[in-house]
Amino acid sequence: MNEVIRQLMNHRSIRQFTDEKLTGEEVRRLVEAAQMASTSSYLQAYSIIGVTDADKKAALRKVSGQTYVEDNGHLFVFVADFYRHQLMSEELGADINDYLGATESFLVGTVDAALAAQNLAVAAESMGLGICYIGSLRNDMQQVIDILNLPEHVYPLFGMVVGHPADSGSQKERLPFKHIYHENGYDSSSYAEEIAGYDEEIAAYYRARTNGKRADKWSEQVVGMLSEKTRLDVDDVVKKQGFLQQ
Amino acid sequence: MNEVIRQLMNHRSIRQFTDEKLTGEEVRRLVEAAQMASTSSYLQAYSIIGVTDADKKAALRKVSGQTYVEDNGHLFVFVADFYRHQLMSEELGADINDYLGATESFLVGTVDAALAAQNLAVAAESMGLGICYIGSLRNDMQQVIDILNLPEHVYPLFGMVVGHPADSGSQKERLPFKHIYHENGYDSSSYAEEIAGYDEEIAAYYRARTNGKRADKWSEQVVGMLSEKTRLDVDDVVKKQGFLQQ
Repeated sequence: MNEVIRQLMNHRSIRQFTDEKLTGEEVRRLVEAAQMASTSSYLQAYSIIGVTDADKKAALRKVSGQTYVEDNGHLFVFVADFYRHQLMSEELGADINDYLGATESFLVGTVDAALAAQNLAVAAESMGLGICYIGSLRNDMQQVIDILNLPEHVYPLFGMVVGHPADSGSQKERLPFKHIYHENGYDSSSYAEEIAGYDEEIAAYYRARTNGKRADKWSEQVVGMLSEKTRLDVDDVVKKQGFLQQ
Repeated sequence: MNEVIRQLMNHRSIRQFTDEKLTGEEVRRLVEAAQMASTSSYLQAYSIIGVTDADKKAALRKVSGQTYVEDNGHLFVFVADFYRHQLMSEELGADINDYLGATESFLVGTVDAALAAQNLAVAAESMGLGICYIGSLRNDMQQVIDILNLPEHVYPLFGMVVGHPADSGSQKERLPFKHIYHENGYDSSSYAEEIAGYDEEIAAYYRARTNGKRADKWSEQVVGMLSEKTRLDVDDVVKKQGFLQQ
């Protein structure tokens, strides 16, 4: 196993950081590494907002509910972004409205932002920094749009906190390789068995960490969460921003 | 600049490979590295299909239009996947239909698959392999679903070809750092100027590569592409698979 793969295999989310802030040079290094990720058809359909303003960080923390959105070395927010493409089309007198309203552009913006984000995460960890994705910014996407002054054809996807780790985090076992990887076609014939085995592993992990007080199975945890009617407003917000008009 | 960041900064898409296939061990190593990427709320809402069957590769190449979909060391297809979650909810007698039909799950599946894919790309390049994303599988998403036998609550996002490079590729300049990175709020006040400068750079790049025959500006290239009414059927297909029901 080479050093890069060793680093990837060692990933864990970090939610506690020292007070040390990232330098401007570090931020630039990270963003430039993010930019080198592949981008669909060279569109570069994303932007990254760095948030250092204390009031804005407090407001975003309120949206997320997580203290580490405020307490970190740097907070990045990743947004899918076709605003620049809209400007360019107006400049050139072209009509790209069918594309901007299609589900395809929603996929492309989301994928472009996510690929850039994961490059940033890998770069940060290679510098000894810790990271955590903040999907909970989607608890109130409209608030995030207002706080960051996002124009039409832009929507926030998630944040990422980066900083000097103040704890070592812990790693959660992933689903078995053969559950995620299929050969030549989708095959769910052994799903029930694989999930049952994985459920036992995860329950054992929680038992060990909580002295037997907690023994959640993965399936129960996940289904419980998905049964809650949360983030149903994401649809309204992305439509208001000009996406998913089909 | 450390070695990991140097690798990220050196990324280029590779579209020509030697005949050497990836070994089973290499495939497993890559998928396991992919699995270690962050996943929204521990959902692991994606699967990866490895395609080695000659007929299936030929069929996917036809969808994509790219020869390297057939000629590579290994072809991966990344799919957003809530099928296992649907099975688990039935098993537990829970109702997760509101979630599965919401725009939020469409975002989560797309992001989860993309983060895993980018980890796989980074891992592959660390092993001296080359990669290229294949977004053109979305030229006919329904075909891809049929070829790979994808069930409901699953949709294909993109492929990735991986292999031993037979050429060195070439790197395309990204948008300026300050165009992608905003501080404390979205700021497009210098967009026009930044795009004009970038357009000149890209035109110079094409002029140099084509002995002056081609001098596309980025804005013209991108807007031209987005003006074409392509992939408008992505919407129908993902809805048929059970997504975007709001």
